[in-house]
Amino acid sequence: MIRIAVIGCGYWGPNLVRNFNELDDVEISAVSDLKPDRLQLIKKKFPNIDVTVDHNAILDNPYIDAIAIATPVETHFPLASEALKNGKSVFIEKPLTSSVTEAEELINLAERYNKTLMVGHTFIYTGAVRKIKEIIEKGEIGNIYYFDSVRVNLGLFRPRVNVIWDLAPHDVSIMDYLLGANPEYVSAVGVSHFGTGIENIAYITINYPDNLLAHIHVNWLAPVKLRKVLISGSKKMIVYDDTEPDEKVKIYDKGIILNGSPDKIYDRMVGYRIGDMYSPKIDSAEALRRECSHFIDCIDNNKIPITDGYAGLRVVRILQAAQLSIENKNERVELKCTEKSLTMSKSERDVRSLISSTSTVVA
Amino acid sequence: MIRIAVIGCGYWGPNLVRNFNELDDVEISAVSDLKPDRLQLIKKKFPNIDVTVDHNAILDNPYIDAIAIATPVETHFPLASEALKNGKSVFIEKPLTSSVTEAEELINLAERYNKTLMVGHTFIYTGAVRKIKEIIEKGEIGNIYYFDSVRVNLGLFRPRVNVIWDLAPHDVSIMDYLLGANPEYVSAVGVSHFGTGIENIAYITINYPDNLLAHIHVNWLAPVKLRKVLISGSKKMIVYDDTEPDEKVKIYDKGIILNGSPDKIYDRMVGYRIGDMYSPKIDSAEALRRECSHFIDCIDNNKIPITDGYAGLRVVRILQAAQLSIENKNERVELKCTEKSLTMSKSERDVRSLISSTSTVVA
Amino acid sequence: MIRIAVIGCGYWGPNLVRNFNELDDVEISAVSDLKPDRLQLIKKKFPNIDVTVDHNAILDNPYIDAIAIATPVETHFPLASEALKNGKSVFIEKPLTSSVTEAEELINLAERYNKTLMVGHTFIYTGAVRKIKEIIEKGEIGNIYYFDSVRVNLGLFRPRVNVIWDLAPHDVSIMDYLLGANPEYVSAVGVSHFGTGIENIAYITINYPDNLLAHIHVNWLAPVKLRKVLISGSKKMIVYDDTEPDEKVKIYDKGIILNGSPDKIYDRMVGYRIGDMYSPKIDSAEALRRECSHFIDCIDNNKIPITDGYAGLRVVRILQAAQLSIENKNERVELKCTEKSLTMSKSERDVRSLISSTSTVVA
Amino acid sequence: MIRIAVIGCGYWGPNLVRNFNELDDVEISAVSDLKPDRLQLIKKKFPNIDVTVDHNAILDNPYIDAIAIATPVETHFPLASEALKNGKSVFIEKPLTSSVTEAEELINLAERYNKTLMVGHTFIYTGAVRKIKEIIEKGEIGNIYYFDSVRVNLGLFRPRVNVIWDLAPHDVSIMDYLLGANPEYVSAVGVSHFGTGIENIAYITINYPDNLLAHIHVNWLAPVKLRKVLISGSKKMIVYDDTEPDEKVKIYDKGIILNGSPDKIYDRMVGYRIGDMYSPKIDSAEALRRECSHFIDCIDNNKIPITDGYAGLRVVRILQAAQLSIENKNERVELKCTEKSLTMSKSERDVRSLISSTSTVVA
Repeated sequence: MIRIAVIGCGYWGPNLVRNFNELDDVEISAVSDLKPDRLQLIKKKFPNIDVTVDHNAILDNPYIDAIAIATPVETHFPLASEALKNGKSVFIEKPLTSSVTEAEELINLAERYNKTLMVGHTFIYTGAVRKIKEIIEKGEIGNIYYFDSVRVNLGLFRPRVNVIWDLAPHDVSIMDYLLGANPEYVSAVGVSHFGTGIENIAYITINYPDNLLAHIHVNWLAPVKLRKVLISGSKKMIVYDDTEPDEKVKIYDKGIILNGSPDKIYDRMVGYRIGDMYSPKIDSAEALRRECSHFIDCIDNNKIPITDGYAGLRVVRILQAAQLSIENKNERVELKCTEKSLTMSKSERDVRSLISSTSTVVA
Repeated sequence: MIRIAVIGCGYWGPNLVRNFNELDDVEISAVSDLKPDRLQLIKKKFPNIDVTVDHNAILDNPYIDAIAIATPVETHFPLASEALKNGKSVFIEKPLTSSVTEAEELINLAERYNKTLMVGHTFIYTGAVRKIKEIIEKGEIGNIYYFDSVRVNLGLFRPRVNVIWDLAPHDVSIMDYLLGANPEYVSAVGVSHFGTGIENIAYITINYPDNLLAHIHVNWLAPVKLRKVLISGSKKMIVYDDTEPDEKVKIYDKGIILNGSPDKIYDRMVGYRIGDMYSPKIDSAEALRRECSHFIDCIDNNKIPITDGYAGLRVVRILQAAQLSIENKNERVELKCTEKSLTMSKSERDVRSLISSTSTVVA
Repeated sequence: MIRIAVIGCGYWGPNLVRNFNELDDVEISAVSDLKPDRLQLIKKKFPNIDVTVDHNAILDNPYIDAIAIATPVETHFPLASEALKNGKSVFIEKPLTSSVTEAEELINLAERYNKTLMVGHTFIYTGAVRKIKEIIEKGEIGNIYYFDSVRVNLGLFRPRVNVIWDLAPHDVSIMDYLLGANPEYVSAVGVSHFGTGIENIAYITINYPDNLLAHIHVNWLAPVKLRKVLISGSKKMIVYDDTEPDEKVKIYDKGIILNGSPDKIYDRMVGYRIGDMYSPKIDSAEALRRECSHFIDCIDNNKIPITDGYAGLRVVRILQAAQLSIENKNERVELKCTEKSLTMSKSERDVRSLISSTSTVVA
Repeated sequence: MIRIAVIGCGYWGPNLVRNFNELDDVEISAVSDLKPDRLQLIKKKFPNIDVTVDHNAILDNPYIDAIAIATPVETHFPLASEALKNGKSVFIEKPLTSSVTEAEELINLAERYNKTLMVGHTFIYTGAVRKIKEIIEKGEIGNIYYFDSVRVNLGLFRPRVNVIWDLAPHDVSIMDYLLGANPEYVSAVGVSHFGTGIENIAYITINYPDNLLAHIHVNWLAPVKLRKVLISGSKKMIVYDDTEPDEKVKIYDKGIILNGSPDKIYDRMVGYRIGDMYSPKIDSAEALRRECSHFIDCIDNNKIPITDGYAGLRVVRILQAAQLSIENKNERVELKCTEKSLTMSKSERDVRSLISSTSTVVA
């Protein structure tokens, strides 16, 4: 039996409460929020759960094993570091922290106190993204040439966070998970339109070695909802459209045929190759349920989460670089390989994949 | 009666021949191509048209009034300048030239010899783009916040020209026509995947004053065909999807409502506004027919083409800057306001619009 | 305060419990089902609600004002008639009953005991159907020529009820509500494929006066989900696609222009008319919430429900005729105008529309 | 070298002229039409082809080997019978004739004079329909349960022919080709809305043995263009959407699982089965080119056309029965097995398929 508390009951927190509440061998010991009316809503739906406006009472409570944090991003670090120091495992909504430094410090704390640290990159737990990962790992796509992600709609402007920190964690975490590679440069452009100084549209470019290019378009100011990822490889190509009710993932047996010798670059040396398309059956179970269950499983069995602190760090590193690029006239930002980000080599991460689910032990 | 000759009968030239041939009061005097087999195809379909492998015979022929050029871009300048010097009006397939310098020189020549110079920005003559222009000019969209264009598919790689010079002239010309503003900066990223050194995927960002942002994604390596433009303004938003058989243009009565005082930027100060959508009836006449007819009309009546040399110059200027940015690690390129590009102020261009169609006289 | 009890907690009943539970001034006094495990699920989510396997305890309970019935259709009549005789208002899931005779008897009982009788034609309470009704009533469509409805998907076969009684109540109730006319004939064809004798695909044709034709395709054996209604009128045409997340309703300014004199029928006398399309903003509130709330409002204020017993009768009458037609080799069945169905003239029904919402008193 | 003449140059005839003209070893000897202006259009595009208003000059001309007829349906029989009697092979646009009697007589004449008789069921020559046929013949779909075809749009009303004779030949010919079975009954409903007495919307039901049900919806009065065929079988299901630019054919690995013994029909005995979907690559060559080429091949090599006189007869038989059903209050019409329709057994037809293309000799 894991006793968990949820801090933060704004937009997303109630979903965590609902999902943890329906898991076996989990007890929600408390829920906190600074606003009493948010707590009343919880109390109405879950009369048996204790609520409080004082999150310190939760952080200090020795009977609580784990904390799930769904508060504004700037509070993630103080809450999580306090929880880890008090010997609690921590689940944090994406993005993990508001800076690389904070993310690295949380990873250090989790390792020092031997506690589970997990970030809520929910898309990694969807049937669609898991199926794409499986297809890529089987080698069906071949070498990947690019990753292009569009995530736009008419979105509620948020007071402290721009569209990059709000939407791009989804795309960056999917990209990081699927590509499994270390990016070299980030550049970004973004604009703010309403005198708020908060970007509502942004384009992020991430350069990987070997001409692998990734690009993300996030936008709060679009009349239609688009959620489309294109991935092209040397063997096949993928379209992942999350707005489709069915057939979210399509695999195209399409590509380029290289003809002639590479010397004669002035000859027309490439042609089309077009074959069948297929759309694999996707597991439609709720991603958040799988995510919450995975967190509990990692605590219980001392496993490393798919979306561990390092995954959170890798995402924050790109968000922070994108922000820096916007502030420096779109200049390309080189990603320094800090000790933390390096320790997570591709081969290590592969071992930890949900699909293989071997119970690798942390530290 | 205008006597016209077409130089270049590769992919696009035969379409020019067909369209000019069906216009009243136009005679196609000759068609040339370096490859005899291309000329045989023309001869088969149009037995009455003279063909030749010697384009100089055309350029020197005093009976020919106008030349339409559909050859590789690097030959546009020598052919067009020779034709202008010989007193012929000139129609050139997009892009106008391979450099700003060449474009400016062609404009100079056209003005010196008082001849019509027109570039084949065909999309400007489609019913969809003309309808969008009309809607913007009526003020229905309000101040424009951004222009986002995606043009991707599995495209035939071309030996000498990268995806920017191949596909982006469409997007840049549509953007230039619809926004009618002077851009300040261009940055771009692009990669090449097959050892050809020729970019097959690229993203171009164009910054205009007042936080108006434009972005273009062109890609020869996508499994699906996407042709989608998003335009958002302070009043309404537009989606233009050229792959739709009907309903290519949709106007959304959607937007953002600003609440509260601009001082309190930490308050949640913006909300949604959602109303009806409508899709205007689009004139489905062939754009190329309208374009060819417009060229003849401009010669006959001494009008300035919608897509004149300046329009061609403005597009080439952005393509050249994008290329430069790619070569300089995505660095932002400032667009210098050369004399030529400045002479074309927004108000002047409005006067020349096809819709108003007043017969402004050149020079 | 209305005290209500829900009988039947299979697939749909829990939705009724959830919605009635969230209404103000409504108390759910009890929930019954023959299966204890279904009741346990209710108890888990709503600890404060009493549950019982004995529905007679509910029907006899003088403190209960109203009953909502979500049981198999063959039990609707005995349960509802008993409840009405005991002075309770009754809400019944669609279809109202399994025969016209039963439906007429329930209407008689409701009138005799002066109680509210309402049927759960939920689609009538959706934003989309209400918007279409509003557009038709404004005269925007003109005279209606036809109503075509397709409702197909891979559906769970049901043991006692064929696809007509399972799916067509939706289409027939929408048709009845939107057309507001008295049909004359019904014919139907249907087949059963798995030796069950229960039709899994059916086509129903309903003839109205003045060449108004309605047609319904219901199908449990389709690989894709289609929910599309076409309505054409003398002025405009409607497409209602319930699978669209947005833009469910589209109004086309398209039609036919009649040219020439009606004498010369051999001349080509009709041409196209094509104008703009628009998609009105649709209220996205939950239909079932509105439906439950309407039932309570009708009880409280002695109003006639939009979907009263007569509406239920009109739907059952068509389902029964369709079944008869299938049994008689697709023969056309004439709809006799029984006293009950006649009493509900079009003008009366219009008065009762949700939109006008005047509080007409029954009897 | 086959010398062919085309009679009728209205909407479709020019397409036949263009396609036969581009075939090798075919010479278009003459083109006739009653309207001189239609002939002028032909003359303009094909200066070398002789035109005439006198089709008798063609029918009598001993140098002409074959006639292609694209005239109003009521003239098909007199023109074709005259041509066959004069020893010419005949290609007739769909539908073959306006009655079963005429169709049978043409078949008799073709057999007596040992000439090729072919009907222009063009859809049979599309890549999509051929691919579906191939998939069905491989047994991939299993036993077919139903065939549902929708063909609606805003169509030009035609003066003498209703929507059944105009549009349904497409659907009926596709159905006949794909199912390869003998239908037993036809019933139909249709209405006319503009005082013309010519049905502009119709629904046709065709019953085959073993509960195989086919249904066709044809409609000239719809705001959107729909061209969708659903085919479900015991193993897989097909959606063929001809309005899709790519992915016209999708094969769904979906279906029903039968559980439990067939005795207990009251048990819930069927469940879903959902797997992958795939969309096969479709040959995109022009169907009409393949059709014209096939006609010439059949003449040259004494082959039986895929769409021979019997195929034309089978389609006319269903159209005529549908018309009769509409005139008799939708009554089911039994299809009598006339000698002619019987002679074409399924096994015979299979032998003649384009795919196997063995050169079976007629008579």
